[in-house]
Amino acid sequence: MTDQTSNKMWGGRFAAGPDAIMEAINASIGFDKRMAAQDIAGSRAHAAMLAAQGIISDSDAEAIREGLLTILSEIEEGRFAFSTALEDIHMNVEARLKEVIGEPAGRLHTGRSRNDQVATDFKLWVRDQLDAFESGLIALIQALLGQAEAGADWVMPGFTHLQTAQPVTWGHHMMAYVEMFGRDLSRVRDARVRMNESPLGAAALAGTSFPIDRHMTADALGFDRPAANSLDAVSDRDFALEFLGAASICAMHLSRFAEELVIWSSAQFRFVALSDRFSTGSSIMPQKKNPDAAELIRAKVGRIFGANTALMMVMKGLPLTYSKDMQEDKEQVFDAADNLMLALAAMEGMVRDMTGNRENLAAAAGSGFSTATDLADWLVRVLGLPFRDAHHVTGSLVAMAEAKGCDLPDLTLEQMQSVHNDITQDVFGVLGVENSVNSRMSYGGTAPEQVRGQIARWKGLLG
Amino acid sequence: MTDQTSNKMWGGRFAAGPDAIMEAINASIGFDKRMAAQDIAGSRAHAAMLAAQGIISDSDAEAIREGLLTILSEIEEGRFAFSTALEDIHMNVEARLKEVIGEPAGRLHTGRSRNDQVATDFKLWVRDQLDAFESGLIALIQALLGQAEAGADWVMPGFTHLQTAQPVTWGHHMMAYVEMFGRDLSRVRDARVRMNESPLGAAALAGTSFPIDRHMTADALGFDRPAANSLDAVSDRDFALEFLGAASICAMHLSRFAEELVIWSSAQFRFVALSDRFSTGSSIMPQKKNPDAAELIRAKVGRIFGANTALMMVMKGLPLTYSKDMQEDKEQVFDAADNLMLALAAMEGMVRDMTGNRENLAAAAGSGFSTATDLADWLVRVLGLPFRDAHHVTGSLVAMAEAKGCDLPDLTLEQMQSVHNDITQDVFGVLGVENSVNSRMSYGGTAPEQVRGQIARWKGLLG
Amino acid sequence: MTDQTSNKMWGGRFAAGPDAIMEAINASIGFDKRMAAQDIAGSRAHAAMLAAQGIISDSDAEAIREGLLTILSEIEEGRFAFSTALEDIHMNVEARLKEVIGEPAGRLHTGRSRNDQVATDFKLWVRDQLDAFESGLIALIQALLGQAEAGADWVMPGFTHLQTAQPVTWGHHMMAYVEMFGRDLSRVRDARVRMNESPLGAAALAGTSFPIDRHMTADALGFDRPAANSLDAVSDRDFALEFLGAASICAMHLSRFAEELVIWSSAQFRFVALSDRFSTGSSIMPQKKNPDAAELIRAKVGRIFGANTALMMVMKGLPLTYSKDMQEDKEQVFDAADNLMLALAAMEGMVRDMTGNRENLAAAAGSGFSTATDLADWLVRVLGLPFRDAHHVTGSLVAMAEAKGCDLPDLTLEQMQSVHNDITQDVFGVLGVENSVNSRMSYGGTAPEQVRGQIARWKGLLG
Amino acid sequence: MTDQTSNKMWGGRFAAGPDAIMEAINASIGFDKRMAAQDIAGSRAHAAMLAAQGIISDSDAEAIREGLLTILSEIEEGRFAFSTALEDIHMNVEARLKEVIGEPAGRLHTGRSRNDQVATDFKLWVRDQLDAFESGLIALIQALLGQAEAGADWVMPGFTHLQTAQPVTWGHHMMAYVEMFGRDLSRVRDARVRMNESPLGAAALAGTSFPIDRHMTADALGFDRPAANSLDAVSDRDFALEFLGAASICAMHLSRFAEELVIWSSAQFRFVALSDRFSTGSSIMPQKKNPDAAELIRAKVGRIFGANTALMMVMKGLPLTYSKDMQEDKEQVFDAADNLMLALAAMEGMVRDMTGNRENLAAAAGSGFSTATDLADWLVRVLGLPFRDAHHVTGSLVAMAEAKGCDLPDLTLEQMQSVHNDITQDVFGVLGVENSVNSRMSYGGTAPEQVRGQIARWKGLLG
Repeated sequence: MTDQTSNKMWGGRFAAGPDAIMEAINASIGFDKRMAAQDIAGSRAHAAMLAAQGIISDSDAEAIREGLLTILSEIEEGRFAFSTALEDIHMNVEARLKEVIGEPAGRLHTGRSRNDQVATDFKLWVRDQLDAFESGLIALIQALLGQAEAGADWVMPGFTHLQTAQPVTWGHHMMAYVEMFGRDLSRVRDARVRMNESPLGAAALAGTSFPIDRHMTADALGFDRPAANSLDAVSDRDFALEFLGAASICAMHLSRFAEELVIWSSAQFRFVALSDRFSTGSSIMPQKKNPDAAELIRAKVGRIFGANTALMMVMKGLPLTYSKDMQEDKEQVFDAADNLMLALAAMEGMVRDMTGNRENLAAAAGSGFSTATDLADWLVRVLGLPFRDAHHVTGSLVAMAEAKGCDLPDLTLEQMQSVHNDITQDVFGVLGVENSVNSRMSYGGTAPEQVRGQIARWKGLLG
Repeated sequence: MTDQTSNKMWGGRFAAGPDAIMEAINASIGFDKRMAAQDIAGSRAHAAMLAAQGIISDSDAEAIREGLLTILSEIEEGRFAFSTALEDIHMNVEARLKEVIGEPAGRLHTGRSRNDQVATDFKLWVRDQLDAFESGLIALIQALLGQAEAGADWVMPGFTHLQTAQPVTWGHHMMAYVEMFGRDLSRVRDARVRMNESPLGAAALAGTSFPIDRHMTADALGFDRPAANSLDAVSDRDFALEFLGAASICAMHLSRFAEELVIWSSAQFRFVALSDRFSTGSSIMPQKKNPDAAELIRAKVGRIFGANTALMMVMKGLPLTYSKDMQEDKEQVFDAADNLMLALAAMEGMVRDMTGNRENLAAAAGSGFSTATDLADWLVRVLGLPFRDAHHVTGSLVAMAEAKGCDLPDLTLEQMQSVHNDITQDVFGVLGVENSVNSRMSYGGTAPEQVRGQIARWKGLLG
Repeated sequence: MTDQTSNKMWGGRFAAGPDAIMEAINASIGFDKRMAAQDIAGSRAHAAMLAAQGIISDSDAEAIREGLLTILSEIEEGRFAFSTALEDIHMNVEARLKEVIGEPAGRLHTGRSRNDQVATDFKLWVRDQLDAFESGLIALIQALLGQAEAGADWVMPGFTHLQTAQPVTWGHHMMAYVEMFGRDLSRVRDARVRMNESPLGAAALAGTSFPIDRHMTADALGFDRPAANSLDAVSDRDFALEFLGAASICAMHLSRFAEELVIWSSAQFRFVALSDRFSTGSSIMPQKKNPDAAELIRAKVGRIFGANTALMMVMKGLPLTYSKDMQEDKEQVFDAADNLMLALAAMEGMVRDMTGNRENLAAAAGSGFSTATDLADWLVRVLGLPFRDAHHVTGSLVAMAEAKGCDLPDLTLEQMQSVHNDITQDVFGVLGVENSVNSRMSYGGTAPEQVRGQIARWKGLLG
Repeated sequence: MTDQTSNKMWGGRFAAGPDAIMEAINASIGFDKRMAAQDIAGSRAHAAMLAAQGIISDSDAEAIREGLLTILSEIEEGRFAFSTALEDIHMNVEARLKEVIGEPAGRLHTGRSRNDQVATDFKLWVRDQLDAFESGLIALIQALLGQAEAGADWVMPGFTHLQTAQPVTWGHHMMAYVEMFGRDLSRVRDARVRMNESPLGAAALAGTSFPIDRHMTADALGFDRPAANSLDAVSDRDFALEFLGAASICAMHLSRFAEELVIWSSAQFRFVALSDRFSTGSSIMPQKKNPDAAELIRAKVGRIFGANTALMMVMKGLPLTYSKDMQEDKEQVFDAADNLMLALAAMEGMVRDMTGNRENLAAAAGSGFSTATDLADWLVRVLGLPFRDAHHVTGSLVAMAEAKGCDLPDLTLEQMQSVHNDITQDVFGVLGVENSVNSRMSYGGTAPEQVRGQIARWKGLLG
């Protein structure tokens, strides 16, 4: 876009001015003004480098850099008059710079173009979001660690197919989400490393004949290095797609937890009480607490993955280098980032505030012969029965208990021996949900000792 | 949501007020104020019905209906102070109504809830968009008919795989898009019929014990009938998804045409000149006209189908009836509708303004032995050769022409007869692009006469 | 593709044969053989028309039509040897036809091409799926009507936010899904009407100079008319996208019901017992019944909407007319159709087999002061209180009942009058879940009488 | 799924057997048999560990490990009879193992379940695909380096908006794709590190009371460590989603290059000749070469991102831990992986075989005053004009050249000086495309010297 200027400037060549439709579809200032700080930071770094390389004078550079600070203040204080006729944030700032400092403003655009400028601005903006994403994840993980620590040994049902399968611990369940958000954290950090190359100086698409120093501007803007190919630098939007991909997976994790919170808040489950802060109530039904925040969080994966879909479709089949289609990148990323950060914060708040209902959790954990597998495992481990035979014996004992209307630990040793003669008193050591969870000491298992070990590991990782 | 009231109202019961995060994630007034006119229309119809059924007094109804008109004026004139604390458009209007008319305002919500109210508002909004969609399609089809009429007999290459396959006519190519947008039109009309059922009176989810008349409110709001199941009425968002689905297919059609315009505008093709109005230029490269509008239109399918993805994912697996997840429906539809209407208008403008380069089109149509299939067909039709033999003969003649550096019509009859003895002078009647297109008289074929017949048919259809 | 022949045939012109990679990526016979019956039906109609128009002889047509029937038998009986070197179903059938009937086989391809042939085959295939879709929906609706009829007056909780809101009837809940699948039915029928235009005779892209009769082949294949533009006819895949769109919305409906069945099957809810046929169990935990079929159905929306995404993205930005990209259309539609039909059949079976637990449903319906809104409505309707005041009185009464550990109907009249003096004995007529649901007689409401009326309407509609 | 056994085994408990629909929707053996090698590797590692820990005897472990090898041979040689009644690959192998080695087979399943088993199998399978993905990328990058090296100094147009903007080099354009596929490579490697944790030993969901050694099995299977939370281990599908995300971005890159190849192969561009190997031709139109492989590659992004959409939607809102919905994961990943590897291989082949048309590229590079920006930059750099003034002078010179029907280098010095007096003879040193590209020496710029530097860097990186 080096060769493009604002609409007013091609007035002489074009018979007709762009009409309202074109202005509406073409202008980006309505959204790209969110990148004002990044745009100004990029321009300031560029001006300093131009002077250092002797391409512009030190005094011009100083005027430019000061003028840009003035404009930044105007924007931050809401005193800047954005103009749609000037199309985008770059031209808005540049035009204002000319008003503020006069002639030297015209030297700022030396050795760059709108193509590398917008790529730089957008990368800086996305990089800030990756940092915010990281912070949001760490805060949420810490909230989960708090819940895990408090309830490291609370028993609750472990579900498969939303059916009680085996008892587990509350702490273990919380730590499952720590692992998920921990992977998100790792994904975000990898994405940040990969994207941290500076497009600035790629110019319109081919690089420039001015003796610019792209390493200097890269350094000044916190990039690890300049992007190595100018065509790629102006046509690459991988960083935005990778952000959206990582955000989508994280939002999916959030949706799973939110789904659990909605189910756990139902009158039928009552596993958890959400705070008033994150629920809405009914003026006439006092027991009703709608888990609005959880539902809204559950929905965000749609919006965020929708943005991923949108940008992937936009980029599909675009020939190099810059095409105007790519202007559709920013609103998708802005909206996804805003909603992701909000969802992370709301989930963190809900987790901090929520209260597990220890009694209900324990009662549910013990129902449905949930320790039948513990019995079967004991038969294998202690009596040496083959796995499938142990299952057969267990099935008979469960059927006996069911017929008697009691649970497994309520059977007598004699009753048990009537099914398999070798069963001993020791069997009672594995029945009951406390025994069950305590026994699952394999690495990563649900035993409180294991859970506490993982909590300690994560605390160490987060410093 | 009957039983929900604004945050302020549960203040007594909830220890903690919703904090900033909850307000940010929960409030919808930032976007649902776009449905103000629909909300007020629905409330006015509801009030009139309540009075007609004797549920409220005529004077209360009159006060409510007048008060709502006052509020509508305030909103239209930008004098209404929207409050985020009041969460949504419904509570904002209701609270203001109480200020304006006092006590009777409290009677408006009789026999309805926020659940059927928001469904009604949103359906009315989407219905308006379906009407705008229809108008936009008709305008675009008319622009295409104008191009088709002007160039019904202009020859141009017909492409497969972006390779010249056979000559076709400009009018025929334009009419292909008329068929596509015509199917969109049909899809929009079907969607409008299907969705035109009134949710109003479904109340929170179960219907109501007040003797309301849902047929009366349905009539007043232009619905064909009341929705037949109150649970479905408040939990259905099919109308939004079907709008997004139809919009996505239309946007895909637009993307195909936009892609052609981008390619046709390249220096290598020069098939079409876009107007200055819908391009941007370069201050120093006069021949460069960037087809910005076409590129932006091409991109819109991403955004619109992204919205479709988002809402489909939101609705996936939601138990009945209303869940707060569904609040994510509106922004997706608003954004998709805005961008679809803009893209249709921009494409209509581009089509009206664009100029086909008749000479370049004709030159391209004639290159590459594009009438070789006409020759082969002649051999089949006139000489009775089997299809595959005719292809063999044609291949030899093309090879001969290529070796001589000429086109097929430039071969002499003798040269042709050297390949197949039965070829006669008549063969020259099918060579040449004009002959080729004129000969394709099968129904829907590219012959100008066929094209003109289709133009006439469409003009009749559109009245 | 008229001008394309199988790889073997261009051997002379191309120095190198396509290697293994090209064969793997290019050949479609691995999947498009599913369209064999459609391909043969199309060719038979084409041959009959060619003879009727005097383009080929009656005896050739007869030989072709008989030969094709022979091939159809071979395919149906698994005796046909498909060849990857022959790329696709069209060339496989054509090559075999030559073996079976000799020279007349070469005349079949007159006046058509692979482009209109594949479009015709695929449309016929999709049309068959629309018919199967319709049948599947009707069977499912009938299963739901059976459940609705059996439990028209069973009370159960009506949920918003998975929180009990108001009592509703089982029949009403089932009928909500009848409305959803009914809209699907309507959508399928509209799609079938819209797509029922014949591409056959569009030839490669431009129509043909042979005097073919496209109306005759359209009739023979059950199309309503020939497609009106040959370029559009070979490049249109709207019918596939519209099928996928309708299938996606239906699959979303299925996912919602499946989610409910999973939740309702949990130990905490026990609202429904799924049959052994559609569950899997545990060899040792007898009470555990995993709702596998419901979970698999819930997942299908992902797969089907994934196919929609895939094809939408494939079609984005494709210039006219046929591009090889479009070969990616079939596998997506095949997979989506297979899975949709399976999901519909499995859901129909589950619905037929499932048993609502009337006692648990009723108990849950009555918990949580679920008739508080009925009380509030009574205060408005009978005592004339403003809506918001009635809510206040109700809130106080609920608080009183909660404090006493009883439900609303258990309060005495005196206790009630201590809150609001005008309350009379009549109030007890609206408390209790049976009274509540019976009172909701607004059109489409949950009252059993309303539900039975809707059942009758639907039985009439389905004949 | 520990507690689940094959259908036959619950026969006693379930009154009705699963019928055909349930079998069709439930069984996964039709696709999960592709994981046979992974399943057997996992079981062999598990058996060795069980023996090392003294949980089973060495002789049993040996029998199991040998028996599994026998079964692997049977499968590899096509002699294994897969049974749908046995549902999945795990039960098929286990049942066969019992036939082969008898009673010890029953001990293999000790301390694990189908839940951790399937997670392990699938992770191993995906890890293999990540390795294949890496190899495919490296091969493609090497092919691109070959093209870049051959044409490091060939000039061609650099496009924005598919309009010629500035001259660039062929090598530079190829290297832009090297950067893209290089980022893909980095993404794949990060994903592999992140996912390389072993689920084995997580058992059904809670871990196990058997004294297993998860580190030992992790080591044996090449994992870096055991997964740290058993609930997460069986319910995590991030690794599949991250594979699909990386595959989607890569496929998007492929689609961009494929689009360029299609456009470059058109008669209007003729920038490149694809080999016969990756094109299809016409038997009668010798110049026509359809870029079929490029079009098919372009389409693959739809299919692969469709799979991403499908699995993301499946996982949305799933409560922990294993739900049957997750069985939908494998077909999506299998199909995406197959198509990605095919697309990479086809693109690599196309790139190796293709021939850039150096003359046409150069001619196109020089058209349209493509060095106007070089002139403007010279005016800034040498004469010290402000950027915007330089543009004005350049515009005037271009207008002059256009009026005279010549290009910029064809103007005389006098003519130039008539526009701006200070222009000197030196200006001719920057006009002309060779001068232009040679001058763009900024880091990452298009100058052949820069391009050769990047080629060398990449060769070093790939070793």
